[in-house]
Amino acid sequence: MNHLELKTLEPEQRLLMGPGPVNVYPAVLRAMSLPMLGQFDPQFTGYMDEVMALYRQVYRTRNQWTFLVNGTARAGIEACLSSMISPGDRVLVPIFGRFGHLLTEIARRCQAEVINIETEWGTVFEPEQIADAIRTHQPRFVALVHGDTSTTMAQPLDEIGPLCREAGTVVYVDATATLGGMPIEVDKWCLDAVTAGLQKCLSGPPGSSPLTINDRVAEIVNARKHVEAGIRSEDSSDADGVIVQSNYFDLAMLMDYWSSKRLNHHTEATSMLYAAHTCAQEVLREGLEAGFARHRITSQALRAGLTAMNLKLFGNERYRMDNVTGVFIPNALGDGEQVRKQLLDDFGLEIGTSFGPLRGKIWRIGTMGYVCHKANILRCLSALEIVMRRNGFAAPPGAGVDAAYKVYNQ
Amino acid sequence: MNHLELKTLEPEQRLLMGPGPVNVYPAVLRAMSLPMLGQFDPQFTGYMDEVMALYRQVYRTRNQWTFLVNGTARAGIEACLSSMISPGDRVLVPIFGRFGHLLTEIARRCQAEVINIETEWGTVFEPEQIADAIRTHQPRFVALVHGDTSTTMAQPLDEIGPLCREAGTVVYVDATATLGGMPIEVDKWCLDAVTAGLQKCLSGPPGSSPLTINDRVAEIVNARKHVEAGIRSEDSSDADGVIVQSNYFDLAMLMDYWSSKRLNHHTEATSMLYAAHTCAQEVLREGLEAGFARHRITSQALRAGLTAMNLKLFGNERYRMDNVTGVFIPNALGDGEQVRKQLLDDFGLEIGTSFGPLRGKIWRIGTMGYVCHKANILRCLSALEIVMRRNGFAAPPGAGVDAAYKVYNQ
Repeated sequence: MNHLELKTLEPEQRLLMGPGPVNVYPAVLRAMSLPMLGQFDPQFTGYMDEVMALYRQVYRTRNQWTFLVNGTARAGIEACLSSMISPGDRVLVPIFGRFGHLLTEIARRCQAEVINIETEWGTVFEPEQIADAIRTHQPRFVALVHGDTSTTMAQPLDEIGPLCREAGTVVYVDATATLGGMPIEVDKWCLDAVTAGLQKCLSGPPGSSPLTINDRVAEIVNARKHVEAGIRSEDSSDADGVIVQSNYFDLAMLMDYWSSKRLNHHTEATSMLYAAHTCAQEVLREGLEAGFARHRITSQALRAGLTAMNLKLFGNERYRMDNVTGVFIPNALGDGEQVRKQLLDDFGLEIGTSFGPLRGKIWRIGTMGYVCHKANILRCLSALEIVMRRNGFAAPPGAGVDAAYKVYNQ
Repeated sequence: MNHLELKTLEPEQRLLMGPGPVNVYPAVLRAMSLPMLGQFDPQFTGYMDEVMALYRQVYRTRNQWTFLVNGTARAGIEACLSSMISPGDRVLVPIFGRFGHLLTEIARRCQAEVINIETEWGTVFEPEQIADAIRTHQPRFVALVHGDTSTTMAQPLDEIGPLCREAGTVVYVDATATLGGMPIEVDKWCLDAVTAGLQKCLSGPPGSSPLTINDRVAEIVNARKHVEAGIRSEDSSDADGVIVQSNYFDLAMLMDYWSSKRLNHHTEATSMLYAAHTCAQEVLREGLEAGFARHRITSQALRAGLTAMNLKLFGNERYRMDNVTGVFIPNALGDGEQVRKQLLDDFGLEIGTSFGPLRGKIWRIGTMGYVCHKANILRCLSALEIVMRRNGFAAPPGAGVDAAYKVYNQ
């Protein structure tokens, strides 16, 4: 490729109704194009402090340590797990979808002794199952996913946090897919560490991971603290715990950078911080509860529409996420890839396939953040009806859209 | 803080003449505000392929595996070192500044047996010193910095790569501060793995790390390959090597994602990829050699100006980087922080302090990428003259700017 032949980037207009990334707020796109500031410019460190305050509101927490990891959602997960877990620690990971496997894998790479309990994809755990496993295995940590987009199921956490606290175990939650789209009460639910990403219901670009940890976790992390040789001063001293195996993800160093110490670590990703700042403002401007309600009714309307088109929804309806819906691909449409391709090529609309046992079995239709609006699900239902019909599956004409309208007019 | 009290982000106009981040290309700011695409949208995966091709040109390599790590420059370093180094591997790290200490620290966290050789800050190594250390210690890897901004020195690499190849050791180079500003010949100099960041001479925002590895390194990495449980298929199989301790930084998984397999890993940071794509295009549009020449003459002019102001330059002049200059802070100005503050507050101009033994001893003035232009160094020299005079150090009036002009008029 000769670089002079390249054209300016001109991304097609897409409506992103997969499980993320999704279309982002216009204000976020504008924020991304703002000029740079130095990383220790007082204005910039002021923005860092504002980001912390904003995400405390989004997470509904008073945790001081609420800040960004510079990487995608998975970076936030690894920062928490690798900073919390010392080699040999026992970690209970309940698995109800792909991302439970991811937590397991990351915990194993941290040299944890991982105990798994599993439930069928499409279901979640009863609190008593988790309490039993804690009683049996006495793990130091419990790590679990809130909403697992691979199955479109959300694990209720309001009882699990307290039962972990009661049992003296520390609980980590991956809220990548739910933050901003479904209630997460970090303090009220006794969640010790929670991470997320921008690219789902916060409607920002992927590449920044807002997280929050409480004092229990901060204490664990600080017990492993270490100061880099290149920036040590005479009063630097290391803690006794086993050093965190990652430098980039060492939360103790990140906390020194995000505190008034401003001890240099990485160079904070300026534009992504602008994005994260703006995402939180947009979510809070609408109001968290209003946003949750919008996600609920929009996904209800989508599901009513899909059902009216004679499609079958996936998973236990009590535990469905409010921002992504799994729907079985009709037999007539094979693995559903031809439909996905035509939706993208002809209608500019992206929906998702799935992973592992659900690959080619279900589509995943996202109603996340800025995408989660009536006009978008009506567009999705009508396009899907047309494309399915062209591929041999005839839904009752107009039934999907009619059913969705009805939900709004109730 | 009540979120409704927040105003829109309005970063001040800053001229960033520290050691990075720097002001970014206008085209990059525009690219950051482009809309999202799905991560497996054919247009987006096409952009990923273009990024690979572009950075092959920037790195002057034919390496297939030339792609982005989603994090700051330090993320790229850790991705390479943690994927290359297995526990117990011996790694030679020559240290000539802060970032040699960083490589040491990251390698230690990978459980390497690290051998250091050190040279005084302000100098670099002779190839023979490195050859001797290799002969004595027989390391599996050599990891070193190209340009260490903490000392403003650049280690010549043209002989070091070949001598490592000859000795059968694999060499990793941190080119964060030099890529795009000084020649780096990955293939010609036999460099096995090289990483960088956007926020220096590539003039993009921090948060994306372009790297390149050759087949020798790919083989090492693939010998440790592992497929995530959540996305395994029946023909997935793991290699025999010790698993990489990070999931996020496991280059084998990243290679599967950046190859035609497109095996899902993280969600590629869309806007940062647009930025990286545009940075490379801008650098190549000017032409690498033209860019290097611009960095050379601009830093010469800056240095002539500083010297004419009776300031003393730091470090061995033979090995100075072409994009950042260390200059001693005159005694009359204490630790120099008051001058830095007034430059920022009154002139909107940022210059850098330094780390460790050089903290409060030298300023570091960057001439990186889009910032590296005559108008900017004249603005810097004139502002510095004025602010230093107001703080008690009188340089000959106008001498700095005159001397800089003279370099251009030679």
